[in-house]
Amino acid sequence: MNNFTKYSVQKEGRIELHDQLNLTGAEISINTLPAGASVPFVHSHKLNEEIYAVLEGAGYAVIDGETVALNAGDWLRLAPAAKRQFFAASDQELKYICIQVKAGSLEGYTMTDALL
Amino acid sequence: MNNFTKYSVQKEGRIELHDQLNLTGAEISINTLPAGASVPFVHSHKLNEEIYAVLEGAGYAVIDGETVALNAGDWLRLAPAAKRQFFAASDQELKYICIQVKAGSLEGYTMTDALL
Repeated sequence: MNNFTKYSVQKEGRIELHDQLNLTGAEISINTLPAGASVPFVHSHKLNEEIYAVLEGAGYAVIDGETVALNAGDWLRLAPAAKRQFFAASDQELKYICIQVKAGSLEGYTMTDALL
Repeated sequence: MNNFTKYSVQKEGRIELHDQLNLTGAEISINTLPAGASVPFVHSHKLNEEIYAVLEGAGYAVIDGETVALNAGDWLRLAPAAKRQFFAASDQELKYICIQVKAGSLEGYTMTDALL
């Protein structure tokens, strides 16, 4: 069995990569909210840290009642307990990646986990 | 203390987000290889699964001796043991995200970890 899995993303509204890539340490979704749209609920997490990366467009998140502007190139880390909801701008879509990982799960990384 | 951290990425060659975002379940880097360049070594990992996302440009990876083409929109999951090296195309840069997470660390995700 290969040590790798590859998936080529086309134009979908939401893609979930966990099963496509056989991920074991993360779930990753790619999401597009049309202009004026929002995720239709507030949520938090039990165990998972979420990391959001804005790929294109603009919008904002409301996190524990605070409004945080989002533009392409912005990255956000959210603790499991953060109550969050995401909104596209009224005149622009918001395309973003959401990465779920178990909070506190990372041990070494980069040079402390690599074998050269 | 806020339940979130935000970082806005400008034009850097390589950005490491672990400390910028106070990540606890992943390290994430954003990398740009100029046309014709490569990461100058082959590496694998002890514990970490790596997930690569190609943001812009083109290139290829050599994984356990196999050449895998990479274009914008491609995602790759690599088991810790995979011996990997990344190359930009001769005439295009390769801009990509690398996500390190501990293999096997994810428990629930999305609806099985969310609180609404």
